[in-house]
Amino acid sequence: MKVNGYAATAEKSKLTPYTYELGPLGAEDVDIKVSYCGICHSDLSMINNEWGMSQYPFVPGHEIIGEVLAIGDAVKNLKVGDQVGLGWMSSSCMSCEQCMDGSHHLCGSSEATIVGRNGGFADKVRGHWSWVIPLPEGIDMSKAGPLLCGGITVFNPIILAGVKPIDKVGVIGIGGLGHMAIKFLKHWGCEVVAFSSNPNKKQDILNMGANKVINSRAPEELESIAGQLNFILNTTNVSLDWNSYLMTLAPKGRFHTVGAVLEPMAIPAFSLIMGEKSVGGSPIGSPALTKTMLDFCVRHEIYPQVEEFSMSDVNEAIAHLEEGKARYRIVLKN
Amino acid sequence: MKVNGYAATAEKSKLTPYTYELGPLGAEDVDIKVSYCGICHSDLSMINNEWGMSQYPFVPGHEIIGEVLAIGDAVKNLKVGDQVGLGWMSSSCMSCEQCMDGSHHLCGSSEATIVGRNGGFADKVRGHWSWVIPLPEGIDMSKAGPLLCGGITVFNPIILAGVKPIDKVGVIGIGGLGHMAIKFLKHWGCEVVAFSSNPNKKQDILNMGANKVINSRAPEELESIAGQLNFILNTTNVSLDWNSYLMTLAPKGRFHTVGAVLEPMAIPAFSLIMGEKSVGGSPIGSPALTKTMLDFCVRHEIYPQVEEFSMSDVNEAIAHLEEGKARYRIVLKN
Repeated sequence: MKVNGYAATAEKSKLTPYTYELGPLGAEDVDIKVSYCGICHSDLSMINNEWGMSQYPFVPGHEIIGEVLAIGDAVKNLKVGDQVGLGWMSSSCMSCEQCMDGSHHLCGSSEATIVGRNGGFADKVRGHWSWVIPLPEGIDMSKAGPLLCGGITVFNPIILAGVKPIDKVGVIGIGGLGHMAIKFLKHWGCEVVAFSSNPNKKQDILNMGANKVINSRAPEELESIAGQLNFILNTTNVSLDWNSYLMTLAPKGRFHTVGAVLEPMAIPAFSLIMGEKSVGGSPIGSPALTKTMLDFCVRHEIYPQVEEFSMSDVNEAIAHLEEGKARYRIVLKN
Repeated sequence: MKVNGYAATAEKSKLTPYTYELGPLGAEDVDIKVSYCGICHSDLSMINNEWGMSQYPFVPGHEIIGEVLAIGDAVKNLKVGDQVGLGWMSSSCMSCEQCMDGSHHLCGSSEATIVGRNGGFADKVRGHWSWVIPLPEGIDMSKAGPLLCGGITVFNPIILAGVKPIDKVGVIGIGGLGHMAIKFLKHWGCEVVAFSSNPNKKQDILNMGANKVINSRAPEELESIAGQLNFILNTTNVSLDWNSYLMTLAPKGRFHTVGAVLEPMAIPAFSLIMGEKSVGGSPIGSPALTKTMLDFCVRHEIYPQVEEFSMSDVNEAIAHLEEGKARYRIVLKN
């Protein structure tokens, strides 16, 4: 199977057309014809080899929406022509304790779609059936791509932390992930406070469904909601004044980060103890939860706010993202 | 009501006999004749004014077991002669959101038994009825005192973290609190790993019910249980290599501290994210949970391992604790 993609040929290079072979289809594999692919910040990190694990030529893309082109002999739950999505992960071992427990995203032998293999900035991509998620009827395929990585990353914490519709919640950082978090939490029934350092986004954020926007650079604004939030989701990956956010939590409140800030978080034990608070984190979510999330999205018409570029304009799209201009997620169309 | 107690007259002083008046009994107050009182490390901290909030003369003691001597007009749930316990807290406002929600221990206006008032190293003590816990029938009063502070402090996290009998759990620091945690978790049905820096305690710890003792000063011993624990309870208040303990957690594992270490805990976000782990904390527990815990203790015959001193030998008892010789909790008897 010949694939036409766009690849970085070296660290920080522009993407150029690149043709490659997928090789024989494995019994549990699924080949997908790519219709749309979102751009995630981790695609940039991989292009730039920030994590030291990029192999060139490198085809990014892991927020994939498409159609099943071919299935291996052992694939039972999909058929050619099915509309599907593929996100950050494209296979898991299926037999470890985590996989057997439904947490395939925590499998120690899982493979990421763009680590050591080529992703969705292409006309075709391959994945293990377990991570090829059937799309629910009625979904808007042109906007669904970012749900497969950014979306499930901020949806999973809502489940993990047991967020309830009666909760008052906060979201730190209103970009690709944060803006989806606001939409999920709004439709979850919560009162939503957004923490943003960019005052120009305020009206946008209110339109997304936030009840209130707090300037995260103004300590007095954080103090104004001291002790109020039952749950905070951090989508940024910079060091914050963690304790000032813990102070905005109500008793029993949970702070959850999906932003992988490099410097260890300085968490005062006393702040946790006195209010029975906790600090947690998570990566993406399981295939089962991804499917459930997509159903939830269709039922409530929850989609990211996307800007569409043609796949052939991938370099312009990447430049737009790098310049901080994306509002709020970019999708490439084949 | 005249009370005969033992008071520190200044920072770090020995305790000396001290007689004082309790004043008129409030409508919601309960006076208790003290039978036994445990000694907690926080009594030492208060004697030594480590937290800058001690007032002298100061009567320590907040692990009190006794008998109701008198009740105010508005007290409905207790009668003179009832056997009761009184722990770290002796009153809460009863009307704030936390109190109304059953979390009186998180009430912002609560009063501690030995902060701004005199405690249980005396023949009598007074508390608000909400924190005067009726003892279940059949309880061993001579050993129950430490359950009212140290006990509930390590019992509450088991509930908060949703620990299940199928879990493999760890306890860091096997002193007054840690040894009670081992007993609770053993009777909870868990597989229990103890982390201790004192090799001399090993046999004792196994006798308490631990399945395994890990030398917390040997990194290779920590590594030997990497990824195994569903829950870890930290009872020490010193800075640990937090990440090495996070590494011993299984995916979705919870680290919980009741030790109020002063230096902020350095928690790598990546360690939380990759395994969906969390770090939490808590103070004591609610009056309702304290009562439930006492029922559980009677049903399973769970008691701290205590050394009994006469109340009049309080200075010898304190010296024994300060020298690190307590095995594992000291109780004073009137």
